[in-house]
Formats: sequence, structure tokens, C-alpha cells
Amino acid sequence: MADPKERATMIVFDGDLDKAMASFIIATGAAAMGKQVTMFFTFWGLNVLRKDNVISGSKKNFMEKMFEKMMPRGPEKLGLSKMNYAGMGPKMMKKMMKNHNVSSLKEMIEMAQELDVKMVACTMSMDVMGLKEEELIDGLEYAGVASYLAEAEDSNINLFI
Amino acid sequence: MADPKERATMIVFDGDLDKAMASFIIATGAAAMGKQVTMFFTFWGLNVLRKDNVISGSKKNFMEKMFEKMMPRGPEKLGLSKMNYAGMGPKMMKKMMKNHNVSSLKEMIEMAQELDVKMVACTMSMDVMGLKEEELIDGLEYAGVASYLAEAEDSNINLFI
Amino acid sequence: MADPKERATMIVFDGDLDKAMASFIIATGAAAMGKQVTMFFTFWGLNVLRKDNVISGSKKNFMEKMFEKMMPRGPEKLGLSKMNYAGMGPKMMKKMMKNHNVSSLKEMIEMAQELDVKMVACTMSMDVMGLKEEELIDGLEYAGVASYLAEAEDSNINLFI
Repeated sequence: MADPKERATMIVFDGDLDKAMASFIIATGAAAMGKQVTMFFTFWGLNVLRKDNVISGSKKNFMEKMFEKMMPRGPEKLGLSKMNYAGMGPKMMKKMMKNHNVSSLKEMIEMAQELDVKMVACTMSMDVMGLKEEELIDGLEYAGVASYLAEAEDSNINLFI
Repeated sequence: MADPKERATMIVFDGDLDKAMASFIIATGAAAMGKQVTMFFTFWGLNVLRKDNVISGSKKNFMEKMFEKMMPRGPEKLGLSKMNYAGMGPKMMKKMMKNHNVSSLKEMIEMAQELDVKMVACTMSMDVMGLKEEELIDGLEYAGVASYLAEAEDSNINLFI
Repeated sequence: MADPKERATMIVFDGDLDKAMASFIIATGAAAMGKQVTMFFTFWGLNVLRKDNVISGSKKNFMEKMFEKMMPRGPEKLGLSKMNYAGMGPKMMKKMMKNHNVSSLKEMIEMAQELDVKMVACTMSMDVMGLKEEELIDGLEYAGVASYLAEAEDSNINLFI
């Protein structure tokens, strides 16, 4: 079993652009230092992992379709937790990131996958919000809270973001 | 003294329905696995523990009465951190939880108490917000930050929610 | 190297008055108990550390000037994460804190510095948001995510606030 110093877990709950960036900056940084990193995406955090598609409506009931439409589809559609200003804030933030050669969130997600960050989608949240596996990006694992706890108990760094 | 792997603490700060659910899902999951779990409720998180009563006004000053009125009273009155839409969001979320046989927040709180999750109300926050013990559910402990830190230092899993 | 029980780290991300207070209450409490405490201020959390000054515009581009103007300048200008009511909420909260002899956020920051809490400003966030060292209070360190991770891996208490 790995040393707790060599492991980190994060629960990505919020699904805002800025909080998602913070979690991937920490995750890729930790993975680059050789740590085993696991990110659990739950509730609004699942939106970070969405593909920009609409799936066949017949698989969803009315409320699930409403949630599907109203929640942001993937890293390029997320809002900011503050100063969102109907989407102007994220545009400005992205421009300022680009000016300073900071990777986009989409690039950070790809980098995390290359660095073998384990990305887990919370199946209970998916059920409640009506999200299907075919709406989420490839390369994810699917699990529940017990799986999170098993990893978190062996990690010194455990964050809820 | 218990192994840090066998303990978990959470600070419940936000008091939104979704974040409160996340914290109780983690707390009851960890307790079911045999861990000692402590939840510290502070600031808006105290609203999760409120009973749906109004107490005698004579014990509160003007601002305390305003806070009492404006803050949600208990698990069935909480809003969502996102997509709240003046209360429609929580209604939809609760319906979707029911459809998937997910317990309500009220049931999760009862389950946590049955599983001996220690629930602590932050006395400093209660003072500042004018909340009295008779407004909160039974079975709580009352303590401050030193008590939190004493438990957190012995736990691997420490979350701020 | 210090015992992980004797260390605590916090990422201060949100920069709301209430969350900033929670982080400084924990930080000063932990430091008073003899722990080594490090606070990393990133994204909106940097606003907690701002001085109430406006710096020479010539050092900033248009968007940086906009962010400079629109983000709160320091502990006395922060809003609440809930019940902000265009600034009335923070006024009420401050009054209620004063009534109960709770220190102001400004005083808590000074106390943290006296107790040798290490306060680190995230340089990447400063770049992205266009914040300069001369806009932040004295006594800070400047570092990035690798520095955070190096400290967090040795701490039992790691919070994201």
C-alpha cells in the first residue's frame, strides 16, 4: 500500500470554471510530482466531464431532460463562481489565462488523463441528475461513496472543492 | 487513540441542500464502514440543524430576529447552491432523489444519529447569528474551534464543505 | 520534519467575508495550539489580502484594470457568500460579531501574522487576475502549486475553503 503522503483525493462538487481549474491545477501538479491522484466528480462537478452532446430524449423523463438542458455541457460552457456576468466573466478569465500561457480547462483535463489521474464519476449523482455514461467523456471510472472513502482514508491530502 | 485512517471530520459551512446531502452521504458512508465521524456545523451550516420553530422574540435583539426569519429553518427549507430558481430546483432535486430511492436529507440526518456520527454545533457561530440551543435538533454537542482541531489532527479525512 | 499532526494547510479560494473568517478562525486557533499553519490564497481568495489602494494603471492592460476595479479591495470590502443583500448582510454580520466581541477579519489577519501563520499568495492566480505584489499586504510569501503540495503532503489537516 502506498504511503499516505503519496496519495491525494479530491471531491469536485461545484462545477464552476474557476473551481474546476483549481482542482485540475492541484491534480496535475500532484500527479507530476509522482502522487496517485483520484478525483471524484459529484453533483454539479459532473458537468465538467460532459461532452457537448444531447442524447436521445427517449431515455430520460421530463425532469431529466430539463436538467440536461439547463446544466452546462463540458469545460467550455462552465460559468465562474463569482463575477460571472452572464458569461462575460468566463470569457475574460479565459483570455487572461491565454495571455499568461495558462492551459485551458480542456487541456488540463487531457493532461490529467495523460498523467494517469484517476477520474471517477459518482453514480448516485448521475442517477439523481439523470446523466448517462454516453454524455460523459471517455476514460472515466464509475463508483460511489464507499470507493471514495477507501481511497481517502489512505491519503493525507483530501479536498472538497 | 484511534488510527487516523479510522476517523473523519467535516466542517459543514454552507447549508445548501446539495452540499448538506453530500456531507451526510459521506458521513453515513464512513460511519457504516466503522469510522468515527464528527461533523462540525458552522455559519450557514447551522441551518441544516434547525427545527422548524420560531422562538420567543424576547430573547433576541432586532438583528437576531431578522436573521432568524431570513435563514432557512431545517433540512426541508434549504435551497440549492446552483439552479435554485426560487425553490423550484430543490423541489425537482427532491423528486429525482425519490425516484431513485435516495433518502431525503431529513432521513440522512436521522441515519447519521443512529450511526453515532457526532454532530457538533459551533457555539461562536450560534452567538454571532443569534441562534439558541432550543432552535436546533436534539442530540447535538456544543463546542468551538479548539474541539474541532483536536479531532481533525487525528483524522486523515478532513473536509470543508 | 514535523509530525503531520502538528501541521495544517488551507487553500483560501473563495474570498467571501464569512469563508475568510472561517479560515482565519481555524488558522489562528491551530497556530495558538502550536501548529505550523500555512494558508494559500488563490483566485478570489487573493482579495482578502488586498490593500485598499489603486495602483498605477500603466502597469495593467484593460481587462486587468477592470478586474482591479470590480474585485473587493481587502477584508473590509468583502461580501458574504449568502444573504449579502448588496452589502447589508456584511454590515449586519460585522455588527453582530462586534456585539459578541468577535475580532474583525482585519484583526484576525494581524493576529495570524503575529502567530507566524505562513500566508502565501498564489503567483499563477496573481498573473491571471493581473494583481501585483504592491496591491497586497506586507509579510506574504509568493509561490505556486508545487509549494502548496509539498506542505500539504506533510499535514493531516488540509482544507479547501
